[in-house]
Amino acid sequence: MVGVNGLLWHGRLESHLVIEEVEVAPPQKNEIRLKILFTALCHTDVYFWEAKGQTPLFPRIFGHEAGGVVESVGEGVTDLQPGDHVLPVFTGECKECPHCKSEESNMSDLLRINTDRGVMINDEKSRFSVNGKPIYHFLGTSTFSEYTVVHVGCVAKINSAAPLEKVCVLSCGISTGLGATINVAKPKKGQSIAVFGLGAVGLGAVTGARIAGASRIIGVDMNPSRLEEARKFGCTEFVNPKDHKKPVQQVIAEMTNGGVDRSVECTGSVQAMISAFECVHDGWGVAVLVGVPNKDDEFKTHPINFLTERTLKGTFFGNFKPRSDIPNVVEKYMKNELDLQLEKFITHSVPFSEINKAFDYMLKGEGLRCIIRMEG
Amino acid sequence: MVGVNGLLWHGRLESHLVIEEVEVAPPQKNEIRLKILFTALCHTDVYFWEAKGQTPLFPRIFGHEAGGVVESVGEGVTDLQPGDHVLPVFTGECKECPHCKSEESNMSDLLRINTDRGVMINDEKSRFSVNGKPIYHFLGTSTFSEYTVVHVGCVAKINSAAPLEKVCVLSCGISTGLGATINVAKPKKGQSIAVFGLGAVGLGAVTGARIAGASRIIGVDMNPSRLEEARKFGCTEFVNPKDHKKPVQQVIAEMTNGGVDRSVECTGSVQAMISAFECVHDGWGVAVLVGVPNKDDEFKTHPINFLTERTLKGTFFGNFKPRSDIPNVVEKYMKNELDLQLEKFITHSVPFSEINKAFDYMLKGEGLRCIIRMEG
Repeated sequence: MVGVNGLLWHGRLESHLVIEEVEVAPPQKNEIRLKILFTALCHTDVYFWEAKGQTPLFPRIFGHEAGGVVESVGEGVTDLQPGDHVLPVFTGECKECPHCKSEESNMSDLLRINTDRGVMINDEKSRFSVNGKPIYHFLGTSTFSEYTVVHVGCVAKINSAAPLEKVCVLSCGISTGLGATINVAKPKKGQSIAVFGLGAVGLGAVTGARIAGASRIIGVDMNPSRLEEARKFGCTEFVNPKDHKKPVQQVIAEMTNGGVDRSVECTGSVQAMISAFECVHDGWGVAVLVGVPNKDDEFKTHPINFLTERTLKGTFFGNFKPRSDIPNVVEKYMKNELDLQLEKFITHSVPFSEINKAFDYMLKGEGLRCIIRMEG
Repeated sequence: MVGVNGLLWHGRLESHLVIEEVEVAPPQKNEIRLKILFTALCHTDVYFWEAKGQTPLFPRIFGHEAGGVVESVGEGVTDLQPGDHVLPVFTGECKECPHCKSEESNMSDLLRINTDRGVMINDEKSRFSVNGKPIYHFLGTSTFSEYTVVHVGCVAKINSAAPLEKVCVLSCGISTGLGATINVAKPKKGQSIAVFGLGAVGLGAVTGARIAGASRIIGVDMNPSRLEEARKFGCTEFVNPKDHKKPVQQVIAEMTNGGVDRSVECTGSVQAMISAFECVHDGWGVAVLVGVPNKDDEFKTHPINFLTERTLKGTFFGNFKPRSDIPNVVEKYMKNELDLQLEKFITHSVPFSEINKAFDYMLKGEGLRCIIRMEG
């Protein structure tokens, strides 16, 4: 297949993304070729575009939060066929390794997120090229392209009646936050929870807390404009650490008679991680880390904070197994069994040709998710 | 009541414990007076005797691991009567506070361990005296005395047919280790577990792992003589960190294809805590802290170790609620439903008059538990 549009980034010298014609090779063994219909972007795209702290790998097609339709399938693919609606996911599920067989893990040995890999695992080559010169993949998804090739283990087959322009946001951030609460922190009905960071992931966590029936949902963010917005998602109280001289964990403990029952950290700041842990109640408090830390960060606390029966856990993609769990999330959303209110997350929409606007919105902190429409 | 023997420590100038006649006042409201029949000792007694890092409180009657019979009850005590067999416990269960009402916590607001308090909570006075001069309590138990007064919330009423000379060791260390495994780490049948520190608490944890059906039980201790002994309790493998140049967490990860499923830390060394956390498998590993750290310790790790789906928890008295749970442990032991093999923990026995020998055994690291027989 020749002549589809791909979005390339030629290196750090460019200040905006460039659309070029790329060739997208047919899917090989255990791969599928997708027609992307809607994609969004999240900070991870920007983080790797800026290539701070990682090996730069350019030119590369970014994008990992999307929805599309199977165009063709490679050898050995039996559970998908052309026309199926799918969400590509940046981490996969091989269904064969100890992680995939464990009820507790979603970190597939074969298909776990790999930010350094720019090729397909089948032959260690790219399926994208311009004039024969390879263009690298990103997170195994590269959804800023009308067509992309992904491993069959990195797509969730969803109900074809689901509105792709909405459910596409379930392929990364929203599910990450939602799952952190409902799969990992697991607040009981009536319990209190603090959510650190009120971007899309944090508001996904707030949504999970609302669905779980938490009685107090305390949003924590340094950006006052986020605090106001969070109320619409279910936050009942707000704390801006900048408004207090005391450490925020102490502020929260005082608000809640000793600490919240659960907390979820969605910023990636190690200081916020420590606060999120230390603000949970002794005896039963559970803190869950979601935000990705910097390479040299160190989590520090007095061990007595653990001995007094607090729990600290981390999660990756909200502990959802992409192929097994995400289709069920979509199904429950469609049956109104999960009050996800996805439309609240989608604050902007642009055609593919204006993708740089979507980056501008994100970099300026405007809105939550901008949907990029691949067709018109 | 006058003329019973109590064991006092007059201050740090003495190099051994002194037996004196003390007066033990009658129990007040919600208190009971116990005749202690058997008591053991653990490192906590020595730690507070040495009074390193805590406020010294002398003269004081130590002892907190014991078994005895109710001699008399104070006002308001309805669920115990003279003649009942009980285990006094250093932490209590009031059954009324949020902790006692929570299924997850055993850290009673009213009766939680208080190492600084040397008096009864009812009137903030001691029930022990010599010639009218008060002698302080220890951990609310003070079992190095033929008679002692404890709060009714700090005793577990047990089956009177249970052998007190054995089950007395369930009132502290063994239950702490056992509960850390069966109540908190909860290894599944066939899983692997590492236990750091192979004293009585650690071997309690090993016992829990054996009962839970763990397939590999890796004991970790710097004392090679402990390693040999641990085999009798169910350890299948041994690691002495001194035998390796690599960090012990790396040694264990290499032995177990990426890490153990569970770990339990029973030494109190912060370095061992870090190793115990970092040696569990990503995706599902759970590490449990039991050992009591020093005041200025800091637990440090890279937060990515949490993000890759590891869990770190702490526990206190193995998450057992003293009054609700310990009687059931004794019951199950008697019905052979819990293969505790308590006799293996009891390596020595001395009459009360030779209590200093019991301290010598402990300080030399000889054996595990020395039972002190209060009657001859």
